[in-house]
Amino acid sequence: MRLRNKPWADDFLREHDEVVVQEPFNMKGKWKGLFHDKEQPLHLEIGSGKGQFIAGMGKQHPEMNFIGLEFVKSVIVGAVKKVLDAETDNVRMVNENAKDLRDLFEDNEVDHIYLNFSDPWPKNKHEKRRLTFHTFLEQYEAVLKPGGAVTLKTDNKGLFEYSLVSFSNYGMVLEDVSVDLHAKEDPLNVTTEYEEKFSAKGQPIYRCTARFTS
Amino acid sequence: MRLRNKPWADDFLREHDEVVVQEPFNMKGKWKGLFHDKEQPLHLEIGSGKGQFIAGMGKQHPEMNFIGLEFVKSVIVGAVKKVLDAETDNVRMVNENAKDLRDLFEDNEVDHIYLNFSDPWPKNKHEKRRLTFHTFLEQYEAVLKPGGAVTLKTDNKGLFEYSLVSFSNYGMVLEDVSVDLHAKEDPLNVTTEYEEKFSAKGQPIYRCTARFTS
Repeated sequence: MRLRNKPWADDFLREHDEVVVQEPFNMKGKWKGLFHDKEQPLHLEIGSGKGQFIAGMGKQHPEMNFIGLEFVKSVIVGAVKKVLDAETDNVRMVNENAKDLRDLFEDNEVDHIYLNFSDPWPKNKHEKRRLTFHTFLEQYEAVLKPGGAVTLKTDNKGLFEYSLVSFSNYGMVLEDVSVDLHAKEDPLNVTTEYEEKFSAKGQPIYRCTARFTS
Repeated sequence: MRLRNKPWADDFLREHDEVVVQEPFNMKGKWKGLFHDKEQPLHLEIGSGKGQFIAGMGKQHPEMNFIGLEFVKSVIVGAVKKVLDAETDNVRMVNENAKDLRDLFEDNEVDHIYLNFSDPWPKNKHEKRRLTFHTFLEQYEAVLKPGGAVTLKTDNKGLFEYSLVSFSNYGMVLEDVSVDLHAKEDPLNVTTEYEEKFSAKGQPIYRCTARFTS
């Protein structure tokens, strides 16, 4: 899916600097300055995909600010369009990957992290690439405020099981677990494109929130 | 299901004292003495039901000793029959409930605890009765050896979700989680009667093991 040369996408992302952060590494420690209400909590989605979640969250939670990371240029274009359509001024998009969040964020700069339908990397030899591997949890702990939390949503059993164990072994405390999110109606659950598709097939959606205790 | 007057059941349980422990409260601190190999780890199932799990575990693990608690007289009779049929000498049954395990077991006397398809007590007002409520975890921690673990297996989403959060909040570490135990074949998984019935309907079976860190 990752296509390197997409000049039209580059142009689009440059043109929409009201949503797309142009020099994200220069924003380290200064993210809140981007937003209309600078004192609102800062929520970060890693891997925003086509943007339905972050655009929906932005609209549902005007009392929070949101940053969405998405590395795939051809995909983030769609997310930016969704954010523009949502006509909400509390969402910014970043076309970078999450190799090391500490390059993008200062310690304690973020209030909450969302991982939605992340790549499950099912093979054991790829464990290190899963976004809930302990090296990622170290990054999250650093950039989150003390007692900050991570919310994971996935349709992938293996990633969910792995992540619960990984969170727990890291010393995080599970705050909320659902093994079938759509079994009960939850008007506050903002869905992703993937989530709608898989849930429509009758497959369970898993979600948990784990909090750092330090 | 609980029937108070079952003289035939009383007779049966008395007659089979090779499996049924007659004076369980007198065994506190002395359980290992009941078994052929007294130095084997002691595993405890709370709520053995019809006994398929504990009889099967006894047979599969001759290197361990097993105690099954079941309060319902008419039900434990079936479990005792299964243990007799299994022709294994490492399983004992106890017709008592788990109101306070510390009355039955000395501190550090047990190596592992199993909770299989426990009553989910779905109403919030009955939370205290769930076998993973923190007051029960306190009992388990007391009677288990340091670093001992609890394995929960259930088809009930609500109980599973509740228990993961309860274990985690108590400071236990999740060691293993499955949100669909029967999705992969596992020849080591000893099933219960309930488990077979529900799994045959295509319903997922949930399992987790949580370890005390003290």
